Amino acid sequence: MILDLLPALGPDSGATSGVTTVFMMLAVLVTAARLGGWLATRVGQPSVLGELIAGILVGPSLLGLADPANPYLHLIAEFGVVILLFEIGLHTDLSSLLKVGPAALSVGLVGVVLPFGLGYFTGTWLGLETLPALICGAALTATSIGISARVLGDLGKLKSLEGRTVIGAAVLDDVVGLIILAVISTIAAGGLITTASVATTAAAAVGFLVVALLLGQLVAPKLFTAIARIPLTGTTGALALAFALALAAGAQMAGSAPIIGAFAAGLILHQTPQRETIEEATNMLGYFFVPIFFASVGAAVDVQALVHPDSLRLGGLLLVLGILTKFVSGYAPFWVPMRHALVGAAMVPRGEVGLIFAQMGLATGALSPQLFGAVMIMVIGTTFVTPPWLAWLSGTTRKDMLANAISDDLDGLDDLVSGGRSHTGSHPTRNSEH
Amino acid sequence: MILDLLPALGPDSGATSGVTTVFMMLAVLVTAARLGGWLATRVGQPSVLGELIAGILVGPSLLGLADPANPYLHLIAEFGVVILLFEIGLHTDLSSLLKVGPAALSVGLVGVVLPFGLGYFTGTWLGLETLPALICGAALTATSIGISARVLGDLGKLKSLEGRTVIGAAVLDDVVGLIILAVISTIAAGGLITTASVATTAAAAVGFLVVALLLGQLVAPKLFTAIARIPLTGTTGALALAFALALAAGAQMAGSAPIIGAFAAGLILHQTPQRETIEEATNMLGYFFVPIFFASVGAAVDVQALVHPDSLRLGGLLLVLGILTKFVSGYAPFWVPMRHALVGAAMVPRGEVGLIFAQMGLATGALSPQLFGAVMIMVIGTTFVTPPWLAWLSGTTRKDMLANAISDDLDGLDDLVSGGRSHTGSHPTRNSEH
Repeated sequence: MILDLLPALGPDSGATSGVTTVFMMLAVLVTAARLGGWLATRVGQPSVLGELIAGILVGPSLLGLADPANPYLHLIAEFGVVILLFEIGLHTDLSSLLKVGPAALSVGLVGVVLPFGLGYFTGTWLGLETLPALICGAALTATSIGISARVLGDLGKLKSLEGRTVIGAAVLDDVVGLIILAVISTIAAGGLITTASVATTAAAAVGFLVVALLLGQLVAPKLFTAIARIPLTGTTGALALAFALALAAGAQMAGSAPIIGAFAAGLILHQTPQRETIEEATNMLGYFFVPIFFASVGAAVDVQALVHPDSLRLGGLLLVLGILTKFVSGYAPFWVPMRHALVGAAMVPRGEVGLIFAQMGLATGALSPQLFGAVMIMVIGTTFVTPPWLAWLSGTTRKDMLANAISDDLDGLDDLVSGGRSHTGSHPTRNSEH
Repeated sequence: MILDLLPALGPDSGATSGVTTVFMMLAVLVTAARLGGWLATRVGQPSVLGELIAGILVGPSLLGLADPANPYLHLIAEFGVVILLFEIGLHTDLSSLLKVGPAALSVGLVGVVLPFGLGYFTGTWLGLETLPALICGAALTATSIGISARVLGDLGKLKSLEGRTVIGAAVLDDVVGLIILAVISTIAAGGLITTASVATTAAAAVGFLVVALLLGQLVAPKLFTAIARIPLTGTTGALALAFALALAAGAQMAGSAPIIGAFAAGLILHQTPQRETIEEATNMLGYFFVPIFFASVGAAVDVQALVHPDSLRLGGLLLVLGILTKFVSGYAPFWVPMRHALVGAAMVPRGEVGLIFAQMGLATGALSPQLFGAVMIMVIGTTFVTPPWLAWLSGTTRKDMLANAISDDLDGLDDLVSGGRSHTGSHPTRNSEH
């Protein structure tokens, strides 16, 4: 059986040139994404927007330098999204978020129910079938924690009451969004929509999360304290990643989605004393693999389908819906004296999870290229309007923003979700960089 | 065409469970390799030995938890070996090695010609065909820089005249070994051995290396100084990796081997002011991906083929040859007053490049599982005998070694190959770990 091994290093074999092609595509995607991300920050936009657009540019429908349909590239992009969700989980302190409490809860719930419901009804009203309409609604649900935190941080509003409420609500709708994703992707794979199947999948997703968190809380701190005693450099980070991959695979086997597992792994390891070491190792991998995910999602955009009247019409509607419904959610905690408009506007950007929905829909064939294009218009549009809108609402000039806009998407998130604890010593690489 | 995308996140699709399976195998391989590496250091052996043996253990012929024939896993292992060669290149200062000069040159040349020639003749004498005999000879040529540097470092001999000579010679025979690899893998893929084809491939390998180094020296320092000005965290490291992948793919396209390109990329970036940032980012990826390579080579070992009398006979012969020929090479600079026995013994361990030869031979079908097993016996055996032998030669006790044996394979190599320049500040992560 070992003779089945693919030819490895022989220059002329087909499989090897496959690996070579992937290496070249990875080099192109990382370079394009990093440069695009940088250009985006130069005009006051989050880097993820530049990464998406860079991906569209190098994708098959324009330059043709990277093909997201390549199965090897697909694996690497999947690895990237697992790293991303693991990073988000690592940055999320569930217990301190619970303290923001009712305000965040109300924003989060309204911010899930309104977009999902209105998105679904708009879809069916426009003649979409049930599954594509569900995916359109679902893609509207999750605010991008990374983008919101980044823009609020640039404006110096991350630690305000409004900022903490937004992050609390964004974490909540990410969790709900991921559960919806698990349900819908099961439906998309199987085709059957029954109350029983929906209930089973939702129970699997919630159950996996609860069991993983409970078991993890019991086992992980002791386990990783033992691992950290292994005097072989890099062991803690490497085994934390192995843990995330194992939970991603486990979530899939339990009938949920791999990213739920990766997110759970992050939440669990957030509570270990080795969190900073793990974050540092994960960030280094994230700098390389996460842009590959965003750029490869961009590369899957068919520009001709994007400018198709159907895409533009539905995309425009989803965009308006996406902005209005999340903006309204900012007024949900009406009894709390706060700047509700600021909260609502900060809830608008979609990102990671919306893109994951779009990718899943396209991959399973539930979304046509036109529908995929419409969802992309919504994701890009909501991300695009947020920074100037928030700057205007908070009276910050673009120049102030540019001065702050030098950090990564997840920078500063730490301080907030861990309740203001200082972590200035946790990123030695951030200082030694440049 | 974008509808060709593999199903991404749907729980029940075949392609996705493919990705899930790979995630699980990666988790198993990394965990096993890290634990194996740690156990190896506990008994005074280099960690790579533990990673190999851990791979054998989880491989298809024993526990069956990881299958190196899986094409996705193969891609990740290839990525790991590219990172490894990039790391070795990054740690190699060609100009300061040239200063050790004639002594290292004579050790390196004798240490390539003797093992290659005797290995080839022994193979044909035992009835092997030309190609397998060539691979056996070639696998004997390259001393493992990582293992030699590690063991010498543990003994405190890395900066001695003997230590610098060994590293100089090991770099030289790595380069020669990689050129031999390019030639032999072309032959293995094509099947024809003519003077013209050998000359063409050797010229391609040398030519690629020379052109890449010259162009790189001109372009890379300015390019990476410009890149380092991009104020987006992680950009320098990510683009350096993209550079390594691009050169790996370029080397393959130029008719050479990907690892030649990755090694060249490392040599080029060694000379940039951003070297330490790049090393740090690469090390972090290396902690995860390099053990996957070694463990997956181990997993390709068929234990039944390993204990086959043919494997044991040829493996034993190759082992004796491998030890004797490299030991003799230590006496090549007879005119230099130094401890020749120490140099010779330190040249004995094979590792990375020997394993790459073995993998290539197995993958192209040029090596039967028995021959692959014989080469593995040689690699494991030479690595196994070196630490106690060197400790005995230098009068160091095992207890002294254990006290030092807490760092990674490549630790300390820096100081040496860059002529003793201090880099104590270059690995903040090394200190913050544990």
